[in-house]
Amino acid sequence: MALIVQKFGGTSVGDADRIRAVADHVARTRAAGNDVVVVVSAMGKFTDDLIHLADQVSPTRPPRELDMLLTAGERISMALVSMALSDCGVESASFTGSQAGIITDTDHTRAKILEMRPDRIREALDAGLVPVVAGFQGVSTERDITTLGRGGSDVTAVALAAALKADVCEIYTDVTGVFSADPRVVSKARRLAKVSFDEMMEMAATGGRVLMLRSVEFARRHGVPLHVRSSFTWEPGTWIVEEDPTMEEAIVSAITDDTSEAKLTIDGVPDRPGVAAALFRKLADRGINVDMIVQNTGTNGLTAISFTVVRTDLEAARATCDEVKDEIGATLVTADEKIGRVSLIGAGMKTSPGVTALMFETLSSHGINIEMISTSSIRISCVVEAARVADAVRALHTAFGLDAA
Amino acid sequence: MALIVQKFGGTSVGDADRIRAVADHVARTRAAGNDVVVVVSAMGKFTDDLIHLADQVSPTRPPRELDMLLTAGERISMALVSMALSDCGVESASFTGSQAGIITDTDHTRAKILEMRPDRIREALDAGLVPVVAGFQGVSTERDITTLGRGGSDVTAVALAAALKADVCEIYTDVTGVFSADPRVVSKARRLAKVSFDEMMEMAATGGRVLMLRSVEFARRHGVPLHVRSSFTWEPGTWIVEEDPTMEEAIVSAITDDTSEAKLTIDGVPDRPGVAAALFRKLADRGINVDMIVQNTGTNGLTAISFTVVRTDLEAARATCDEVKDEIGATLVTADEKIGRVSLIGAGMKTSPGVTALMFETLSSHGINIEMISTSSIRISCVVEAARVADAVRALHTAFGLDAA
Repeated sequence: MALIVQKFGGTSVGDADRIRAVADHVARTRAAGNDVVVVVSAMGKFTDDLIHLADQVSPTRPPRELDMLLTAGERISMALVSMALSDCGVESASFTGSQAGIITDTDHTRAKILEMRPDRIREALDAGLVPVVAGFQGVSTERDITTLGRGGSDVTAVALAAALKADVCEIYTDVTGVFSADPRVVSKARRLAKVSFDEMMEMAATGGRVLMLRSVEFARRHGVPLHVRSSFTWEPGTWIVEEDPTMEEAIVSAITDDTSEAKLTIDGVPDRPGVAAALFRKLADRGINVDMIVQNTGTNGLTAISFTVVRTDLEAARATCDEVKDEIGATLVTADEKIGRVSLIGAGMKTSPGVTALMFETLSSHGINIEMISTSSIRISCVVEAARVADAVRALHTAFGLDAA
Repeated sequence: MALIVQKFGGTSVGDADRIRAVADHVARTRAAGNDVVVVVSAMGKFTDDLIHLADQVSPTRPPRELDMLLTAGERISMALVSMALSDCGVESASFTGSQAGIITDTDHTRAKILEMRPDRIREALDAGLVPVVAGFQGVSTERDITTLGRGGSDVTAVALAAALKADVCEIYTDVTGVFSADPRVVSKARRLAKVSFDEMMEMAATGGRVLMLRSVEFARRHGVPLHVRSSFTWEPGTWIVEEDPTMEEAIVSAITDDTSEAKLTIDGVPDRPGVAAALFRKLADRGINVDMIVQNTGTNGLTAISFTVVRTDLEAARATCDEVKDEIGATLVTADEKIGRVSLIGAGMKTSPGVTALMFETLSSHGINIEMISTSSIRISCVVEAARVADAVRALHTAFGLDAA
């Protein structure tokens, strides 16, 4: 008998029919001899509706109250799922984040979990119930209601699975798993049966939309196997697990793309210690998250620094660059919004030379110019013109043998 | 400096504009030098929407989960009111029933308050905040979320006012106070400046729609003055207070009407001890609330028992009567759905003979037949044909000198 945490996203509990389908699936999982803990998001777009309501009422939206407001969403879906379970003959009880013992810091709207005390969840399991837990929310050390920020319901599910030593954390969503590329871009994209935590983290960080980096990191740290699958087809999806050293790994597992960023370049920077530090310290102090950074030194003792930020931070980042330009004696700041990033990800890349070469050759043969490059041991990313991102993904998908038969 | 509990009903927080108006009023009350605790209901018809959603999902609606679901409503309105207060420059924080220390029994969907532990509310007041508390909800001795049933938000407000020893509990609603009769029935109805707890309880029990009996009882028991007023005009409304023995009391303060009940009559009942007990014990065991009871004994040793129940209980009550008919040797059970009750209420009635006579004469002169009569020291109620209820109320309003000039 296994203990399974099943997390259902907003589309999975989007209306009364879907909620009943979820309850039916939980009942079947239970009938197969497993213990189940359910974690739910708010229904469909309900959280967005609440944010809209808050905007109508208040220009400032104090974060403590925004959290109080938004946690109404899961309260509704969890009570409804629990009701539907009861109609399937499964005894259950719903629990808020607070009741489930999810203790967070006091950083409202993006709180971090400090401690898990799921005593009531354990009691409910021992009593033969299916606990239905609100995702996305917790209670702070100051006893105030908090939310965990974007992707927070996945974090709740993984944290509960870790605390309860569950055998697997199933993440139900509206896609059937993790694909070798975005199926909207590459029609021949294949569902991956298995992905390592490291690969999944690189995918999440470079534009993979299925899971947020944060929940994958959490799952890896606590060794919680994830299973991403569809609540519409209920077929097996993609397992995200520890790398198995006995298996031969795919050289390239997936290709991700991300067109949400913009590029800034500072030219004519004197090549001396501390110059880059001055710039990136100031950006960090202003809460601007820098993603890729590339620096090239020319022969004249001057250097160019390019970096990418999410496009919504572009103006703030450009203003910061303009400020430090004179301080550090640079000559020019330029911005480019029309960029995109294409990334190859594969755990087998570590031991396979030639991947970089094939990637560059493929892009070149399609007339796609590379503007920036960055690599990790299991990833190569290239920044290219935004308009060519889809072409690049398709070309690489074919070149690395990922196309479905 | 006074401590004022201000409770806002569903229409008072029905949309973003109304919520901002509420915040503005609270800010003014504060600026006038008072401490304020706010209690809110769910916005407009939101609770009804949630019940509709529950009906779509589940035919059984387990009570624990229904409570979890319904408490989402106040969570939304209280967070929004708190946000709006912040925009008015008033520091505030919202609190759920559980956070406000409202401890109830475990009778879900109609829990009773067992204990008030409003420590966090006191702390918030001491810190100079305006606490905004969810009405209608509490937490049970089993640590589950409960709701207080119909009129529960008023109960929350009164209970908080009692526990915090507030100077007054203001109940804001969509009418400007308590009237001498329903203004929809009697165009010349007057707003009453002051009503005693006893009168208000009789009014609540006989069809007055402004306050539920339960919250008036609670206020009287704890000596909390109530002030019922409008959140649309903000003008002073009706005070509900302890009777002031030094004042001369109006003989008749108000006339109420109620057409929600039906009448059942059992005829040919042997007039011996225990017969009525057998009937009303069985009705009570089935959860059927009996309101008026009248029994008349004839000369032949047989008696007729008539009683009223809310119309939704009529079929269950009739079935019960049919069952006991043979047991107690009665001959006939008849039901009448087309009845209504008209009541005269006034604390001065105790010392004024002739009120009953004038009431009967007035009804008689308008050709209205009286089917049942019941009295208390400050109330006379007559059951009449439902179609004549409005005529009866208007005639009595005029006869007892209540018409506005």
